[in-house]
Amino acid sequence: MNKKIAAVIGTGVIGNGWIIRLLAHGYEVKAFDPAEGAQNKTKQAIRDAWPSVTDLGLAPGADPEAVTFYDSMEEAVSGATLIQENVPERTDLKQSVLQEISEVAAPEAIIGSSTSGIKPSILQEGAVNPGRIIVAHPFNPVYLLPLVELVGGMNTEKPTMDQAFSLYEGIGMKPMIVDKEIEGHVADRLMEALWREALHIVNDGIATTEEVDKAITYGAGLRWAQMGPFLTFHLAGGDQGMRHMLEQFGPALKLPWTKLEAPELTDELKEKVIGGCEQHAGDVSIAELERKRNEFLVKLLDLVEDYWPEQKETRV
Amino acid sequence: MNKKIAAVIGTGVIGNGWIIRLLAHGYEVKAFDPAEGAQNKTKQAIRDAWPSVTDLGLAPGADPEAVTFYDSMEEAVSGATLIQENVPERTDLKQSVLQEISEVAAPEAIIGSSTSGIKPSILQEGAVNPGRIIVAHPFNPVYLLPLVELVGGMNTEKPTMDQAFSLYEGIGMKPMIVDKEIEGHVADRLMEALWREALHIVNDGIATTEEVDKAITYGAGLRWAQMGPFLTFHLAGGDQGMRHMLEQFGPALKLPWTKLEAPELTDELKEKVIGGCEQHAGDVSIAELERKRNEFLVKLLDLVEDYWPEQKETRV
Repeated sequence: MNKKIAAVIGTGVIGNGWIIRLLAHGYEVKAFDPAEGAQNKTKQAIRDAWPSVTDLGLAPGADPEAVTFYDSMEEAVSGATLIQENVPERTDLKQSVLQEISEVAAPEAIIGSSTSGIKPSILQEGAVNPGRIIVAHPFNPVYLLPLVELVGGMNTEKPTMDQAFSLYEGIGMKPMIVDKEIEGHVADRLMEALWREALHIVNDGIATTEEVDKAITYGAGLRWAQMGPFLTFHLAGGDQGMRHMLEQFGPALKLPWTKLEAPELTDELKEKVIGGCEQHAGDVSIAELERKRNEFLVKLLDLVEDYWPEQKETRV
Repeated sequence: MNKKIAAVIGTGVIGNGWIIRLLAHGYEVKAFDPAEGAQNKTKQAIRDAWPSVTDLGLAPGADPEAVTFYDSMEEAVSGATLIQENVPERTDLKQSVLQEISEVAAPEAIIGSSTSGIKPSILQEGAVNPGRIIVAHPFNPVYLLPLVELVGGMNTEKPTMDQAFSLYEGIGMKPMIVDKEIEGHVADRLMEALWREALHIVNDGIATTEEVDKAITYGAGLRWAQMGPFLTFHLAGGDQGMRHMLEQFGPALKLPWTKLEAPELTDELKEKVIGGCEQHAGDVSIAELERKRNEFLVKLLDLVEDYWPEQKETRV
């Protein structure tokens, strides 16, 4: 069986994360990065991460040595069905690299950009085969975290998105297709809101960086590994779920609890939120969701004990 | 050995959560809630949660039956060293209940309010022994999540906070003392920022509630059980840690990635953030922190697989 081939363009922390994930899933990887010492850094990153991906489970034929660096973009992308771009986050630089890739890529290849913020239609500008360039935004460490946000640009057609979905799912990811282009996509907008508030809290002298971190890890952070903010609130609302929560905590949206203005809680938004949660929960009762959450949290608390920050001294 | 006695005033979801945590840690609990059927709901909540707290480990003498409902506040708080107030989140209601509690509580008792947003100095107004009234804000489910934010008001002295810290630590919690009073304390400000952004995303038709949840659970949520936003960024910055991250992503604070305005990244704020992370990490190298993070994530991914939302159908 011939190995599937992927090309990774730009081998910083994120590029190397992709290389490790691809290798662990049995791909042959062709890499391009003109920076001095890039190849050695990649080898080191693979060595460091290989025990982790091995523990998670390797695909048949997975080989940590199956990565080759090339001196030209053209050689690197040749034969690749997936080309992942990870150059620094500057629009002009990404556009020119993606143009160059699109000129030499196979027409049926998916060209995914790891950009955390730039809209795909902007990235597609000036490319030969613009519809094939999409956002495929991963999360650090790429070889462990499964989320990848897929966003097509104005030139992207549905079959391309379907093909991309399968490709990324095939390397153990949970692809999420974002239908509407916005800067920062979805996940980074959520994280950026929390991050900005965290900076305000430190700036205003309310808490230290370490205290902010603990306010997450010992509380909501434990839930967020299993359940996002909507389902969490759905469970906090008793039998009425989100419907009750919006009635009870809707007014708090007007309070100056953050420096972020909330949207008006219109009937339409209420229905989107309540209906969304009910659909998400499906036929499962709140009591059953709670039981499952508790079972998970007990196991997680057992696990996390050794890994919380205050354990650092005893483990090194 | 006489059992320690705690009083729980108001037995909704949060009040019952406190009762379960206190019982699991060997307390005798005296409860007060004039609502019809309150006692039966509490008994049911204890039955539902007892397997979880048992799995986590019970204290010697822990007894799920050691809770008694009283017809008057005075009887309920008599003999209690810890009195936890959990009535609905309305300032006037909480103030009048806390006044009543302070009139009948032992002078050395800690009176903790579970308020998620009101400042302690406001809660202390008009009380007999105002310094004893503090914010002790827990997270749902209270019997599993260890975080409790402790905030003293203008009448609270340090020995009271020290006593409260020991009391809550003694029931398996990770108390965090917040030195400066603000509405929403710390954790809820962070969650509220993310929550408001999530509402904007749904309101603007970018993603559904379910997609927003997945954008958390499959990505950053996995990290947040172990590491907060600051240490996460410290690790994403390579050898230079947070210093590098602020240089690289500082400019993104100016981008309209959320509807929340970021603070100005002054030299002073930079130093607070960088110094905070370096102190938090201590003598542990970034490589060692990464190794530990990976080890944790591999185990967590193994665990969480059965508990992610898409598993709901197969598990009921």
